Amino acid sequence: MKATVIHGPRDIRFEEVPDPTIQKPTDAIVKVHASCICGSDLWPYRGDDETESAHTIGHECLGVVEEVGSGVRDFRPGDFVVVPFDHCDNTCPACLNGAHSACDNFGITKSGQAEYALVTQADGSLVKTDGVPDADLVPSLLALSDVMATGWHAAVAAGVREGGTAVVVGDGAVGLCGVLAAAHLGAETVIAMSRHAPRQELARRFGATHVVAERGKEGVTAVKDILGGVGGDAVLECVGNGPAFEQAFRVARPGATVGFVGVPHGAEAPLRTMFSKNIGLAGGIAPVRRYLPELLQLVLDRVIDPGQVFDLTLPLDQVADGYRAMDERTAIKVLLQP
Amino acid sequence: MKATVIHGPRDIRFEEVPDPTIQKPTDAIVKVHASCICGSDLWPYRGDDETESAHTIGHECLGVVEEVGSGVRDFRPGDFVVVPFDHCDNTCPACLNGAHSACDNFGITKSGQAEYALVTQADGSLVKTDGVPDADLVPSLLALSDVMATGWHAAVAAGVREGGTAVVVGDGAVGLCGVLAAAHLGAETVIAMSRHAPRQELARRFGATHVVAERGKEGVTAVKDILGGVGGDAVLECVGNGPAFEQAFRVARPGATVGFVGVPHGAEAPLRTMFSKNIGLAGGIAPVRRYLPELLQLVLDRVIDPGQVFDLTLPLDQVADGYRAMDERTAIKVLLQP
Repeated sequence: MKATVIHGPRDIRFEEVPDPTIQKPTDAIVKVHASCICGSDLWPYRGDDETESAHTIGHECLGVVEEVGSGVRDFRPGDFVVVPFDHCDNTCPACLNGAHSACDNFGITKSGQAEYALVTQADGSLVKTDGVPDADLVPSLLALSDVMATGWHAAVAAGVREGGTAVVVGDGAVGLCGVLAAAHLGAETVIAMSRHAPRQELARRFGATHVVAERGKEGVTAVKDILGGVGGDAVLECVGNGPAFEQAFRVARPGATVGFVGVPHGAEAPLRTMFSKNIGLAGGIAPVRRYLPELLQLVLDRVIDPGQVFDLTLPLDQVADGYRAMDERTAIKVLLQP
Repeated sequence: MKATVIHGPRDIRFEEVPDPTIQKPTDAIVKVHASCICGSDLWPYRGDDETESAHTIGHECLGVVEEVGSGVRDFRPGDFVVVPFDHCDNTCPACLNGAHSACDNFGITKSGQAEYALVTQADGSLVKTDGVPDADLVPSLLALSDVMATGWHAAVAAGVREGGTAVVVGDGAVGLCGVLAAAHLGAETVIAMSRHAPRQELARRFGATHVVAERGKEGVTAVKDILGGVGGDAVLECVGNGPAFEQAFRVARPGATVGFVGVPHGAEAPLRTMFSKNIGLAGGIAPVRRYLPELLQLVLDRVIDPGQVFDLTLPLDQVADGYRAMDERTAIKVLLQP
């Protein structure tokens, strides 16, 4: 099949690789209907994570089941499915505790930006729609495979509550979905920290009541001015690097929780600040499957429309252009069509 | 008055110092009826925290109001009061968010191991009993000024829930009170990690269903053997140093929360582990006043008896012996009587 392969920093190629095959009875092969590029794909793209040898890349997709292993009970060829980027059995102690992303049988989609993707733990991981969904719903359904579920996890982990206040650090697609999640979960004030006009605009469409363009100390002041002199009840850290972590803790009020979902890169938890201000830190890799049934219904009912994060659609064979656009921040998030 | 003064590492003297005086209208002076030595007093005692110049020490006490400032409305001389080690106004945004220990008008008891103590924010901080309590209740009431409220905070921050499992790291007085809190809050399994027979025994009296003497990798194995192969739903970190933090995260199941209340010393939050396992970290300086009304009632109703942590009582002028006993771990916690 043709698949996206990363060979090294800024070296993305769409090329022939072996087709994925059923390895275990719990596996399924999905023919990719749409996929996309994740902010975390930029870590190896930028060389921040080393690429030791060339490998397929891309972990977000949805599509049609092509083949299932002998142990798969709930899915069969032809089913239209959303593929959570993190596969899980949905039955182990971690899954039962809501930590599907630490499943005893954890797996990950490895060729989402390709013609076919292997899903380990198909029964535990996948959710299906009744037939092929309306085309205009595809972007929002695709967003559920990672970015929307991740933004939602940030909001849940941060303890967003009805009538409370939320501050979102990071205006990437995850941060924007965090805004949507915080608003949907009932936060009365949702502050998006963003410096980019198109992202600010989308944040407002997603329910941000305020946008703060300043960062650092000025950003803290601006947030507190909005919130009557205090920080946020819930803070969503949607980047993962040091400055974002620092910003997040500085805009959190005493007793707040920072929900973090960005892969930590050079970040540290400020233990002394957390101790003196009673600011908690919770989150991690999004347990996508935990939220998927609920989020799927919200999309199908057209209550939420996270697919708006896609502002560039490319044919899959132009995937390298997609990486470039996201790296240069000319696109928020790129949708790829085989 | 006579007060306990620390001059440097292992140099504790009971000596004459100026009486505390009302500085602000919100202040009160309390005549100390009983006080005690905290595990955190051992940091400067052992030289782990520097003592730049001699100063009074001791932040846990209860007693009788001697004098109040002109702005104090709810207390008057003669009231018998429990003094939270951390003073707060109980009205600022931090207090309203349950983070009384980050109060805008934060203060701390500075001469608890003395004849008199100054309480800033008397109205916000103090709670009183109806008259002088029975003598046998005094140790448990005294424990509410810090240690019991701190153990309770660890349990609350860790999210101990009815029917869940809890693991307590640290068998100091705070850890033991954490056991009591976890049991009272309904944890079905409470594992105390303790190597010392008298502390193990007290842990069991406080509600531990299991005691694990092993540490490190063996400790993790022992905990998981008890819990059916997984870590605890809630983990109480009641020490604050690096090995205790490490132990705490290793006995936490994916999706768990570590509640931490020990002053961090050489500890780090293991961000990558937290991220991959979705283990949260919450807690900090105990917001004592937040819990005080509830805990006071539990003690007065003789439902909980945290005063059992005191296994050595000394006259206040022998305070140096008390520090020695706690440093050498021949006493769990020392009660001092003027």
